[in-house]
Formats: sequence, structure tokens, C-alpha cells
Amino acid sequence: MCKIFAFVLISFMMFATVQAAETTRDSKIKVVVQVSDEDPRKWNQALGNIKNIQRDLDASHVEIELVAFGPGVAMLKADASTAARVSEAKADGVILNACQNTMAAMKLTPDDMNPVVTYVPSGAGEIVKKQHAGYTYLRP
Amino acid sequence: MCKIFAFVLISFMMFATVQAAETTRDSKIKVVVQVSDEDPRKWNQALGNIKNIQRDLDASHVEIELVAFGPGVAMLKADASTAARVSEAKADGVILNACQNTMAAMKLTPDDMNPVVTYVPSGAGEIVKKQHAGYTYLRP
Amino acid sequence: MCKIFAFVLISFMMFATVQAAETTRDSKIKVVVQVSDEDPRKWNQALGNIKNIQRDLDASHVEIELVAFGPGVAMLKADASTAARVSEAKADGVILNACQNTMAAMKLTPDDMNPVVTYVPSGAGEIVKKQHAGYTYLRP
Repeated sequence: MCKIFAFVLISFMMFATVQAAETTRDSKIKVVVQVSDEDPRKWNQALGNIKNIQRDLDASHVEIELVAFGPGVAMLKADASTAARVSEAKADGVILNACQNTMAAMKLTPDDMNPVVTYVPSGAGEIVKKQHAGYTYLRP
Repeated sequence: MCKIFAFVLISFMMFATVQAAETTRDSKIKVVVQVSDEDPRKWNQALGNIKNIQRDLDASHVEIELVAFGPGVAMLKADASTAARVSEAKADGVILNACQNTMAAMKLTPDDMNPVVTYVPSGAGEIVKKQHAGYTYLRP
Repeated sequence: MCKIFAFVLISFMMFATVQAAETTRDSKIKVVVQVSDEDPRKWNQALGNIKNIQRDLDASHVEIELVAFGPGVAMLKADASTAARVSEAKADGVILNACQNTMAAMKLTPDDMNPVVTYVPSGAGEIVKKQHAGYTYLRP
């Protein structure tokens, strides 16, 4: 009986240890930054906040995704006042996602957008999914 | 001694398993959406975001509660420009909560409100409680 | 063998129990409130929300930190329209942090600020760190 007992015990310990490891596996802090305002000052604030987070938390320990939706999508257009800073953010490792729902409503195509931009079906949905996956949320 | 030992071990394993189950019990993604702005464009943005989340994440896998407080409470009034869309959101399974603190300050009673609305003592308190209970937070 | 076995088992149970305790150790609900808007109505809304959270959740069970950055830092200046309410919040146990990045950009020194204010290197970084440490997030 003692052998079965030991086997069950060891199996359980391995299972519990794996579970604990899952929780702490990825030590990077992940941040999802929302831009949904029309105001270009908010766009610049978002980009400034991202730079400050990278400096304050050490860029190598942090993973940042910006999600633009609603009137905020205009921030990621090729001709936006923020275009140069958006490209710079990409070079600094930031993912920049535009909402395809908004783009369809505004009749925008990828040709209108900054070439560094990537796409998500729903900006609001992306914010929810990322938080659910453990990202912290910042809305500048 | 071995029997006591086995009993303690099995009790502990059951306890640990129940704890793990608690954490993952409810697989629905829960979202609390805050409306605290005066601007009706933000009210419509909130309702549009909710529709997009329900479409993007599949309405049957997501549970959404909108909480209006401060100037945002006006969105849930019976005569609000958003009244029809608010009723439609309710029909789509969204909970729509108005802050009673704000209503008292604005001298509003349930008679002034959209009949689909429910109430919470404090809108800000509700946002905190829901996040603490695992809801993701969206402020459009 | 049984003694070694018992020793390993008891060690593991102690470890697992400590881990579980870590997670639930602090039963206080912690909230980080962001002020990054220029509009003094948002500053007053933040202070009102904090009062309501303290009343709704019971002040002794909640720990609140306000973080002001960008144009929101002006809320914590000695001559702000909100100065008296800010001092009152401090007396009610709220931590009030101003962003040093913003202060440098605005050429503000601690002499310009409300004496109850404390400082963080980056306001946006602080929001991320606190959420990562389990704080709920409120942006009024």
C-alpha cells in the first residue's frame, strides 16, 4: 500500500508545483494602453506614458501593446500628427493595434494607416482579452 | 500511524483541489464598463464597445455590467438620447446600473430613469468591487 | 523510509499553505485612482469617488492611492482649487502621489506642491506597478 501511497503523493506534488509555476512563469509585466479619445493631446500623452513606463520599469521587463479604437484610431493613420512618434514606439518594441470595426465604420483601409500598425477585429474586445490574460490596463 | 497519515494527506489534497477549482470555476469573461463622462458621444461609444465585445468574444461567454456615475448617470435617464440603445443593451443581457449617490446629488428618482435600469449604492464602489471579484475594466 | 516520507509531505504541506496564505494575506481592498486630465471637474470627481468608495466599502477595509500625472499634476499644487479637499483626503488616509517626470517637464518643485503630497518617479509606471501588485484601477 505504501508504494501506491507514495505514487499518489508524488503525482499530486508534481501537479501542484506545475500549477504554481504556471502562475509565475512569465515574469514580464504586460501593459495594454487604450487610446479611444479624439484629442491629439491624449495620443501624445499615451506615447509619453509608454516611454516613461519603459524607463521606470526597464524596457526589457515590460511588454506594451497600444490599442486604438473609436476616434482614437486616427492616431495611427499615416498622416497623423503623431506618425513619427508612433513609428518610434514600434522601434522601441511597442505593438500598435488598430480596431478593424472602427476602420470599417470610418472607411479606412491599411493604405491609410502607418505601416508599423497591426490590426485586431475589435479594439474593446482586445482590451478585455488582454486584461483577462493578465495585462495591466492604462487609459491615459 | 499510517492511517492518520493517509487521512491527513487525503484531506489536504481535497482542500487544495477545491481551492484550485474555485479559481477557475467560472469560465465566463466578466466585464465592468464605466460611464462617468458628460459627453453623449462617450455614452454611445460605451454601448458600441459593448456590442463589439459581445460579437468579438461571443455573447454567451461574456457577462457585461455597465456602471454609470457622476455626469454619466444622465445616460440612463428615461429621456436620454441613448434611451432606445440602453433598452436594447438590456435585451442583449447587459446589466445597467446607476449610482444612487449621484442620483441623490442630482435629485433624480427611479421615476426619472429608464425602467431597465438597476441601482448600486456607489458607482465608484461598484467598479472597485467588481474588479476585485475578477471583472476586467473598460472605460470607453 | 516512512519518516523521510512524512518529512517531505509535511514540508510540502507547509509550503503550499504558506503560498495560499500569501495570496489572501491582506484582506484589504487596494485601489489606485488615476488623475491625468486637465479638467478640475475630473479632480473633484476623483476626490468624490474616493469618499464614496471609503463609505461604500468601509474606510478601514480599503487602501486608496491617488496618482496624478500629466496635466492632472496641477490638482496637487499648493494653490489648486482642490487644495483643501486634497488635504482632507490625506487626513482620511489617502496617499496622494505626484509624478516627478511631469513635475520636471512643468518645472514644478515640491515647494509648489501641497505639503501632504508624496512623489513617484513615473505616474504611469506607478499605475502599472500597483495594478501588477493587485490594486484595482479607477480612472474617474
